[in-house]
Amino acid sequence: MSTAAAPQRPLTHGVVLDLIRAARRISRVELVDASGLTGATITNVVRDLIDEGLVEEAGHAESTGGKRRTLLRLRARARFTVGVQLDRSSCTIVIIDLAGQLVARTAIGGAGYRSPHETLCMVADHVDSLLDSAGVDRHRVLGIGLVSHGPQNLDDGRLLSLSPMPQWHGFPIVADLEQITGLPVLLDNDATAAAIGEFWIGGVDPASTYACIYMASGIGGGVVSGGGVYRGGTSNSVEIGHVSLDINGPECSCGNRGCLEDYAGPPAVIAKAHTVPGLAERLRFTAGETETLTNFARIARAAVAGDADALTLIRDSARYMAHSAISLTSLFDLDAVVLAGQSFATAGSIYVEAMQAELDRAGFARDVHPVRVTLSKSGADAAAIGGAVLVLRSEYTPRDLRRPDGRSLRYGSSRATALPLTAPS
Amino acid sequence: MSTAAAPQRPLTHGVVLDLIRAARRISRVELVDASGLTGATITNVVRDLIDEGLVEEAGHAESTGGKRRTLLRLRARARFTVGVQLDRSSCTIVIIDLAGQLVARTAIGGAGYRSPHETLCMVADHVDSLLDSAGVDRHRVLGIGLVSHGPQNLDDGRLLSLSPMPQWHGFPIVADLEQITGLPVLLDNDATAAAIGEFWIGGVDPASTYACIYMASGIGGGVVSGGGVYRGGTSNSVEIGHVSLDINGPECSCGNRGCLEDYAGPPAVIAKAHTVPGLAERLRFTAGETETLTNFARIARAAVAGDADALTLIRDSARYMAHSAISLTSLFDLDAVVLAGQSFATAGSIYVEAMQAELDRAGFARDVHPVRVTLSKSGADAAAIGGAVLVLRSEYTPRDLRRPDGRSLRYGSSRATALPLTAPS
Repeated sequence: MSTAAAPQRPLTHGVVLDLIRAARRISRVELVDASGLTGATITNVVRDLIDEGLVEEAGHAESTGGKRRTLLRLRARARFTVGVQLDRSSCTIVIIDLAGQLVARTAIGGAGYRSPHETLCMVADHVDSLLDSAGVDRHRVLGIGLVSHGPQNLDDGRLLSLSPMPQWHGFPIVADLEQITGLPVLLDNDATAAAIGEFWIGGVDPASTYACIYMASGIGGGVVSGGGVYRGGTSNSVEIGHVSLDINGPECSCGNRGCLEDYAGPPAVIAKAHTVPGLAERLRFTAGETETLTNFARIARAAVAGDADALTLIRDSARYMAHSAISLTSLFDLDAVVLAGQSFATAGSIYVEAMQAELDRAGFARDVHPVRVTLSKSGADAAAIGGAVLVLRSEYTPRDLRRPDGRSLRYGSSRATALPLTAPS
Repeated sequence: MSTAAAPQRPLTHGVVLDLIRAARRISRVELVDASGLTGATITNVVRDLIDEGLVEEAGHAESTGGKRRTLLRLRARARFTVGVQLDRSSCTIVIIDLAGQLVARTAIGGAGYRSPHETLCMVADHVDSLLDSAGVDRHRVLGIGLVSHGPQNLDDGRLLSLSPMPQWHGFPIVADLEQITGLPVLLDNDATAAAIGEFWIGGVDPASTYACIYMASGIGGGVVSGGGVYRGGTSNSVEIGHVSLDINGPECSCGNRGCLEDYAGPPAVIAKAHTVPGLAERLRFTAGETETLTNFARIARAAVAGDADALTLIRDSARYMAHSAISLTSLFDLDAVVLAGQSFATAGSIYVEAMQAELDRAGFARDVHPVRVTLSKSGADAAAIGGAVLVLRSEYTPRDLRRPDGRSLRYGSSRATALPLTAPS
């Protein structure tokens, strides 16, 4: 790699890696056509990637009359990335390889009442175990994509929220997890990551504009349009949980009034369940703030099983969600809405039905095109997979992964955001 | 231009034109640095642009030791574009040159009760007069950017709304205006165009993420992030007028309930004014649906002059707008909100004050960064200027403007959307 070409290099190399990943096997001539780069550039980039052990030659294409073309493919096991989705009640860890395929996954308990450092040590232990059990050499791991709720400061790698617990606010989770694991760590929003994860595993039409509504303890969102992730100013975007349903509603922690999360989110539904005589006992609610997902899942299971009280609660939540989804589609001009995250796992179909009915009926652009509501293909794993994908696509080769000053990669305003997503085939 | 290079050409040529426009005077070497293109490509592109009369050599840069570099600049008067903002109550027409500078403007009455064809003939007459009075040769006009409210079908150039009048719904306004004027016509959303126009005239920080809230008879919006226009699936995006304030509010034409426009928009404020005893008489309201802007301006003027009833009406409208702006910032993670359009012309400062106070207090990312509310620099002209800019940047040279099949350019999914905005210096 020549010094003069350095500023362009990672982007060019990333584009070529993406094209090879998407095609599985592709010739240099096809790379020229697909990338718009010159033959000379492709020759140089491919040589670099082969030298670094990321790409290998793999036979020849069928002859089309002229010289037979050598095909290239990724050395999938040359590099890996880790994705960690973490909040108060849940934590999912995944490993993906350079080809973007899922290698291993595990789900453990969330942060609960633990301190940030204690939690991150626990996460690091589980990452180590997962790498061991999958037989992945740590030296081949590019980094960890840690995804959690917003607001976040991506520049200095901190959460700016009082959740999971107040002591997390402003705690340097990126720096701490880097120190514990010795790996570069990237922080991002869980709902944005879920939107990216869903794209990656082929759950959406890559040309479409869709919102992923992500519900775990809270409700977040991410929007992807034609492969481009909508980020906004500081990647604290598409917080659909904080769209107001009622200008005169109760004040929310965000300062707004009548926010969706305070009507439709799991804590709100659980609080309402406590006001229904006998329901908490009937559903065997577990006490404690960290039991949000467990108790919400009990309501959801009862609703699906036909419990009238539970069904009313879930249907109300779905109705609020549907109402906000109309405003969301009128703002983002969506083709599709994908529901992801643990809290859609059980009663997701009730939400899909309610939201589809409302979006068929209303919405600014409904005469131009329909909006399709679906459940995530990856279910609870979408956010963690998205976290791993973000590392894979933030920096493209190990050489670039650590900056010269020894600090780790940062996502957000980086060149990675400018590059449209391309999912592996 | 070689056939093989055709698919890449307009983008490359457009990038170079943009860079020359932004720099005013720039050398080939600087173009290589700024574009990331090779020296050979820049040489070829610049030769094409000089051959077409779009660019000319303009002296030499100060010597920095080596050979003096020849500077390039746009031939600003080589090409022009026209922007037309049209709705029921207003129509603004502007002409800009290849350098992006405003050459001429005029404001005429809106569509009123006229038929679409009658209206477009009137518009065409005024375009002709404006070109004549500005001394612009029609052969140098690249096309007309017609901007109006949504929903729209950009693919076939039609409005899909019952406004200005029901007969406009589905009328082929693009085809009709092309036939009348003999010029290519591009259709787009007025609020999106206003967001682009504001960028173009330097009213916003080009690196920022901002929403332009555009209020004429209705309320629309456009979002630009780091120079990229948010489009969504069909460019029917950021319809902030159809964000719900109240899940139990009155049903709106969009099918949603409690939409902002039905509380804060000029027709709603005028309707409320009619319920205040004596106010309509005191403000000398003019009857008729086409008088929305006139009557709203009377309320706004009275409010600014201290009329207590009028002030209450405008402050209520501003309070609703402020409430929706919080949801908007939480979704789009905005750095700034710009208020544009005729209906902010008089009492805009009341809106700015109310919205700034709310956005300082609330919003999901308020601890990460502030959101600044300002009035548009271009006032009522932003949308028309944006329309003209869209033509300038949709297709980059006359050779590309008309497709081989003789049909005119279409904006929307085209390559132009992928290209970040760069304003002229």
